[in-house]
Amino acid sequence: MKYLRFQTSGEVCFGLLEGETITQLKGDYLKGAIEKSSVTYDLDEVTLLPPVEPSQVIGIGLNYALHAEETGKPLPEEPMMFMVSPSAVIADGEKIELPNMDHRIDYEAELAVVIGKEAKHVTKEDALSYVFGYTMGNDISNRHLQKKDGQFTRAKSFATFKPLGPAIETELDPNRTGIKLSLNGNIKQQSNTSDLIHSVEDLLVKVTEVMTLKPGDVILTGTPSGVGPLSPGDQVEIEIEGIGKLTNAVKE
Amino acid sequence: MKYLRFQTSGEVCFGLLEGETITQLKGDYLKGAIEKSSVTYDLDEVTLLPPVEPSQVIGIGLNYALHAEETGKPLPEEPMMFMVSPSAVIADGEKIELPNMDHRIDYEAELAVVIGKEAKHVTKEDALSYVFGYTMGNDISNRHLQKKDGQFTRAKSFATFKPLGPAIETELDPNRTGIKLSLNGNIKQQSNTSDLIHSVEDLLVKVTEVMTLKPGDVILTGTPSGVGPLSPGDQVEIEIEGIGKLTNAVKE
Repeated sequence: MKYLRFQTSGEVCFGLLEGETITQLKGDYLKGAIEKSSVTYDLDEVTLLPPVEPSQVIGIGLNYALHAEETGKPLPEEPMMFMVSPSAVIADGEKIELPNMDHRIDYEAELAVVIGKEAKHVTKEDALSYVFGYTMGNDISNRHLQKKDGQFTRAKSFATFKPLGPAIETELDPNRTGIKLSLNGNIKQQSNTSDLIHSVEDLLVKVTEVMTLKPGDVILTGTPSGVGPLSPGDQVEIEIEGIGKLTNAVKE
Repeated sequence: MKYLRFQTSGEVCFGLLEGETITQLKGDYLKGAIEKSSVTYDLDEVTLLPPVEPSQVIGIGLNYALHAEETGKPLPEEPMMFMVSPSAVIADGEKIELPNMDHRIDYEAELAVVIGKEAKHVTKEDALSYVFGYTMGNDISNRHLQKKDGQFTRAKSFATFKPLGPAIETELDPNRTGIKLSLNGNIKQQSNTSDLIHSVEDLLVKVTEVMTLKPGDVILTGTPSGVGPLSPGDQVEIEIEGIGKLTNAVKE
């Protein structure tokens, strides 16, 4: 099932997406309210919102071998975790802003795991039962500040730097799905989550060994090789097989 | 004024601390509810809670010159930001747990800045008007994982690794106050926030240039020199002049 959040007539709504039709739900899917109402909308007549408002956004560095290679860093033995501010999250269709035009600022296509219930010290066997579903994320990164700081938080937390959505797919094998990013129609990243160094289950185990995740929290699972810079006016499209497409333009 | 949060008969309450007496408030001080009720408690008859439940905890690395020197790192030209999970926060009096006994896990005394209103792109002149007040924080850090990961999030986010409180002082010059940490009665860290490389105003400017802070969010402003390892049974006391003392024992 594909769930999304949207705004219409100033009201925040939750919906089920089937084809191009949204059926409004009677409440928040993250709170178990998945009962349909009788109200439907066409996808193009509503304003999409990020599908969740995460309290925490956990990023994972260097989780595809070829990307680790392109950065010149050794493969991490354990998942390399960092956190970014939820205030960076924007919806499908919202514009990406580049505040430091003289710095290189890159796109990064990622599978985003959305947590469904409080998760602490989960086991590998149970890990996926804590997941509500999966969506697309773009882990936009200011390479200049990322290198300067060493810590990734600042470089990746600017407003608009975390496009997320549009819909969360609840039925998916997260470790065997194609992921692709196109910039102005040209494919720049193309991989499969089967190439993840640390699987989604492993990430859940290692993250919740440390911290408690809440419903709506997001783990960005790392980006494949092919990262590159964004310029004003660029159109970025991230597609994950079985989930959908996340499209954002860069503000001119 | 000193504000704190506590629990009594299973209820979460907000209070004003005068000497050893708490006067219960009619609501949450972060929401402007600072009207006193007629109910009072002795400090020792209630269970203290962390004074806020932050949505974001921002840490600042290497912000005292002598501490930067002891780590062997160059002084950061700009504040080095990282984020830790709010799930690590505990109250005054709660026990610190050391999950990896074979790793070196250090105490770090810090001035904690508590945000009072939504803050985004603040100016240096206005910066302190976004602050609700100041309290003590202990930025407990697993040195082995900190070095292994490069990123600080994991090493500093384990449950119980962020003691915070007990009370928030609203009247304080944050850039001119003594800070001290004692381990089992022996002074280990002693400095003054006048030695901060980046002042509290500068931190607010640089952090909100990137992300939006919400009421209750916390900036941990960095630790002075003298960091060292914790062992089971240790008693850690952090004292900041004009605010109070934060005391936590390490679980045996």
